[in-house]
Amino acid sequence: MIPGELIALIGKEKTFFIATHINPDGDALGSSLALSLALESLGKETALYGRDHIPELYHFLPGHERFSNVLPPGRSPLIILDCNEPERAGLSDGSLPYSVVIDHHETVRDFGDIRWIDPAAPATGMMVYSLIKSLGVRITADMATNLYTAIAVDTGTFRYSNTDSEVLRVSAELVDSGADPGVISVALYESWSDGRFRLLLRVLDTLEVVGDIGISFVTRAMFAETGTTPEDTEHFSNFPRMMKRLTISAFFREVDGGWKVSLRSRGEVDVARIAEMFRGGGHRNAAGYKVAADMKTAKEMLIKAVMSRR
Amino acid sequence: MIPGELIALIGKEKTFFIATHINPDGDALGSSLALSLALESLGKETALYGRDHIPELYHFLPGHERFSNVLPPGRSPLIILDCNEPERAGLSDGSLPYSVVIDHHETVRDFGDIRWIDPAAPATGMMVYSLIKSLGVRITADMATNLYTAIAVDTGTFRYSNTDSEVLRVSAELVDSGADPGVISVALYESWSDGRFRLLLRVLDTLEVVGDIGISFVTRAMFAETGTTPEDTEHFSNFPRMMKRLTISAFFREVDGGWKVSLRSRGEVDVARIAEMFRGGGHRNAAGYKVAADMKTAKEMLIKAVMSRR
Repeated sequence: MIPGELIALIGKEKTFFIATHINPDGDALGSSLALSLALESLGKETALYGRDHIPELYHFLPGHERFSNVLPPGRSPLIILDCNEPERAGLSDGSLPYSVVIDHHETVRDFGDIRWIDPAAPATGMMVYSLIKSLGVRITADMATNLYTAIAVDTGTFRYSNTDSEVLRVSAELVDSGADPGVISVALYESWSDGRFRLLLRVLDTLEVVGDIGISFVTRAMFAETGTTPEDTEHFSNFPRMMKRLTISAFFREVDGGWKVSLRSRGEVDVARIAEMFRGGGHRNAAGYKVAADMKTAKEMLIKAVMSRR
Repeated sequence: MIPGELIALIGKEKTFFIATHINPDGDALGSSLALSLALESLGKETALYGRDHIPELYHFLPGHERFSNVLPPGRSPLIILDCNEPERAGLSDGSLPYSVVIDHHETVRDFGDIRWIDPAAPATGMMVYSLIKSLGVRITADMATNLYTAIAVDTGTFRYSNTDSEVLRVSAELVDSGADPGVISVALYESWSDGRFRLLLRVLDTLEVVGDIGISFVTRAMFAETGTTPEDTEHFSNFPRMMKRLTISAFFREVDGGWKVSLRSRGEVDVARIAEMFRGGGHRNAAGYKVAADMKTAKEMLIKAVMSRR
């Protein structure tokens, strides 16, 4: 599965740029950091690029402080992780060096000199794990923590339907290499500020159910009232999914000129297709898009889009 | 670890009674059902005893309908799972046959002719898994679903600090034997009625934080208003744990003459010791007790008990 050219490139080159997507999540950050650490253990040099700042939630990841929002000069090969187009990484296509894509998203653009895209992979972290193994690198505790987090975030810590025995077996090995499931879960799920908790209650109070679609939202005023920021809404779209009759949970966040919409679905319901109707993208069960409209119109557009796919 | 007398007993006897604790949870039910299925695959007969009815949440467990609240006549050996005293199983001590205890709780009474109690085991399901393996039984999909659920419930689906690489490796094997992580997680965490969801919001609105202790409660009136029952509060005590500054989450449920209290804690904070001060018990991070007092007094008693341990 791993392209031979990628193994050859890593053998040949001395320096790499590693970049991941804007609004980075645990899979983006963890897989980038693990790859960087692995390449450095082979005597390579790496620079980590992320346009956006690293959410405080992920400050427990070893090496997170090494991300910079300035791409260093030079023409070293670029490895883009957990996305497959430069725009998603906040880079402009024009002047990029030789580029490698490592990604597991279903919505695919035509970019990259070496393209390793596996939508069947539950997380980019699983792909990076197998790359690291095939490079013969011994997995350190820091790499293990990054990879475990990457896999945990994209499988809902082994709750989503993309959790298979391979995911559990790789995670077991990462625990043996030093990842601590309890500590990582506390960092991911039990490190909320009081304000974030109050914000969640405010958001859940907005929940409206239309058929099997649950719609909740957050406004800028709600952030101000609870002393929170948009990063505090990570995972919020998952909560309404607890309700049996919902197959789609849509979470609207107020942004300049409209709303950023996170979609979560259950089982066979494909929200990547819905998001693409609004020029967004993602995975079958987790996708997103932006819409320039007032809340009422945006909500109606979504419901209409969902209905049109049935 | 597995007592030789237990293996010998299973080899020798033809019929077994299997019992588990009142208010059964996923570990109680899953480990009992898996053991029953395994013994029957060896040509044994088993009767499953549970004093209380099986919560609807667990009706997805293969074989759950075989539980009866009548212990059949006869003197076949009794195997008590996930508790270690007859009272916890709703049985009176006086007239019990030869008895085996398989349990992982820390609060231990002196009961049983064969006592296999391992507080280091993350779930009774892990113990039953190793017993089934050592009996040479091939694990069927039905056994796997029961064992996976047992382990999932007692490890917070791999989020609690009792999750180790062994838990993940056994779970991987159970997936290979037919357990479906996505389906089981939907059954456990995403099958809530609308009323249950409304009840959660009501309960979270009651949250009061005293230092690092979070206290929330549910009254009988709240059940009536949302059309829910006490079973609907399973997992409720975990939600306030999301807040970083809480190390203990206490959830009070109104019962005849007082309150039933569920305690959840993080890391080294031992709530089993707190629960024992009120003649309750449990694990280090999950314990419970009953108290006959009004809410205000009950709350003060708890805070005082926590402070006395510091």
